[in-house]
Amino acid sequence: MINPFLIEITRGRLIESRHRGSVAIVDADGAPILALGDIERWIYPRSAVKAIQALPLVESGIADRYGLSDEEIALTCASHSGEERHAATAASILAKAGQDASCLECGAHWPTGEAANRALAAQDGQPSALHNNCSGKHSGFVCLSCGLDENPRGYVTAQHPVQQTVRRALEDLTGAPHTEAVRGTDGCSIPTYAIPLSALALGFARFGTGVGLPGERQIAARRIRRAVARYPFMVAGTDRFDTKLMQVLRERAFVKSGAEGVYCAALPELGCGIALKIDDGTPRASAAVMATLILHLLPLSDWERTEVEALAWPLLKNWNGLEVGRVQPDPDFFRSVTTQHGS
Amino acid sequence: MINPFLIEITRGRLIESRHRGSVAIVDADGAPILALGDIERWIYPRSAVKAIQALPLVESGIADRYGLSDEEIALTCASHSGEERHAATAASILAKAGQDASCLECGAHWPTGEAANRALAAQDGQPSALHNNCSGKHSGFVCLSCGLDENPRGYVTAQHPVQQTVRRALEDLTGAPHTEAVRGTDGCSIPTYAIPLSALALGFARFGTGVGLPGERQIAARRIRRAVARYPFMVAGTDRFDTKLMQVLRERAFVKSGAEGVYCAALPELGCGIALKIDDGTPRASAAVMATLILHLLPLSDWERTEVEALAWPLLKNWNGLEVGRVQPDPDFFRSVTTQHGS
Repeated sequence: MINPFLIEITRGRLIESRHRGSVAIVDADGAPILALGDIERWIYPRSAVKAIQALPLVESGIADRYGLSDEEIALTCASHSGEERHAATAASILAKAGQDASCLECGAHWPTGEAANRALAAQDGQPSALHNNCSGKHSGFVCLSCGLDENPRGYVTAQHPVQQTVRRALEDLTGAPHTEAVRGTDGCSIPTYAIPLSALALGFARFGTGVGLPGERQIAARRIRRAVARYPFMVAGTDRFDTKLMQVLRERAFVKSGAEGVYCAALPELGCGIALKIDDGTPRASAAVMATLILHLLPLSDWERTEVEALAWPLLKNWNGLEVGRVQPDPDFFRSVTTQHGS
Repeated sequence: MINPFLIEITRGRLIESRHRGSVAIVDADGAPILALGDIERWIYPRSAVKAIQALPLVESGIADRYGLSDEEIALTCASHSGEERHAATAASILAKAGQDASCLECGAHWPTGEAANRALAAQDGQPSALHNNCSGKHSGFVCLSCGLDENPRGYVTAQHPVQQTVRRALEDLTGAPHTEAVRGTDGCSIPTYAIPLSALALGFARFGTGVGLPGERQIAARRIRRAVARYPFMVAGTDRFDTKLMQVLRERAFVKSGAEGVYCAALPELGCGIALKIDDGTPRASAAVMATLILHLLPLSDWERTEVEALAWPLLKNWNGLEVGRVQPDPDFFRSVTTQHGS
């Protein structure tokens, strides 16, 4: 199956580039609401499942035992820009478990946020693992390990009790087997397991509604969603799409991007989960698809609509601030969404 | 026509993302050597045609009148990383025409090279138009304007004598009309005209061989190719694909990337030009396709082959330096190239 065009990039009067992909929207029983393209294809969810990976930390009571704040819980679900507040919050999570950055096994990289990157360079600083965009998730893993009375060393490996626990949570929510045969290694060195796109959407429908989850897990999922809605800066950062969308929609939409054009969302009031993947892995397209979907699924006030439209279909400006093109939905995709028929 | 897969990105045992596109290779008479996908589709060449845009400056004798060096001529063809030597060379071009950076109409942006970006931040500096990746081309336009006794002000507009002269050179080499109907605005504010991919390949076959060009233009094209081959750092920068490929192949391959997944090349010894466009606009794919083509078209020494293979099919490593995947040619594309049959 050839996936349909979802997003087009215009310049002048022409379409300059185009992105194909697939979209699955399902309810918490797995019933399809919208299906575009090959929704049974196995994809790596990458960072899009960080909130599900954070469930064991919260549902086990370990987050409470260490007194993690909502800001800190939000950071455990983050692909953050490495801004000062992100790095400081990761350090604070580790400190609460009696640990420090030397435990982190995610590797160091310069902040992905441009201003944060230059600020660190201007201070003559060097990036540490705390600046890694996954440092919050990893700090959460270290807490989970300590709370389970396991030595954190090697917590990134598939065999470590932390990754085993996280894998079971992912299997429970998505219903998809997470086996060695479909295991890849993520940018931060933890395993990432490929699953069908439809299963990923189901995982987020359950995460957003609690339907079919044990009581403690329902409570944990709600707590994580609320923490992120209160502190959307924590999950991404300044001028980032995830942050801006949740600053507008708060608890109405939990959204999380993953590398290589993956995007997931839970829309609790509609009882559905969304998972999408751009074939070519480009984030500009996955973000535009997600915002387009949300625009047509959620009833919005005029202000909310204006804000989300600016995120969905950004103007492309050049270095002199001149408008040169647009990111916009493919007309057939737009029609599929507005009529809510799959193709 | 649906363009074929050209490049796949693997992770673990699976293909994570894929890129479609089209490839045109033609000789200097326009006869096809390889055609993959829709080679008659009109695309914006963007920065890939900077060397052709530099022809009027050289063939008119204006470059010599101002005493431009080979390094400076190479920079007029550049999409550079904004490193100190790039910015200084752009300033030097302008000074030779009695001008300075205040003439540049490309806009300012932080260096695209990560190290250059941080070095400027660490010096507490602010980026100027000299750091714009197109500052060499724009400095050349300012020289051309002065040499033609035209006021440089407004040299980026389609109506200015500089852009009219440049447009005629593009039309002559590619044989394609450059009309207002297919005009877009580039990132640096000059016009970019869409043309068929096959015409773009023809332009580079002529640029690389001189076939069909007037004498002065043949000499200018050779001078530009040699200048770039002598100073490949100037056209891109540290660790950049264009620079690394030409550091290996020197005058045997003139290559130039353009935004949105465009790549062009001239291979003088084979008498052909190459133009390719990735549908989704991703540079990792356009670079891998170009290197794959060159690997199979040019006879290479063992050392050259090893170097080009590393550029063509890079290993993907994560923040801990672990191999997580590869960028590699789609098997059908690879077969098309190695058997040199179009599809």
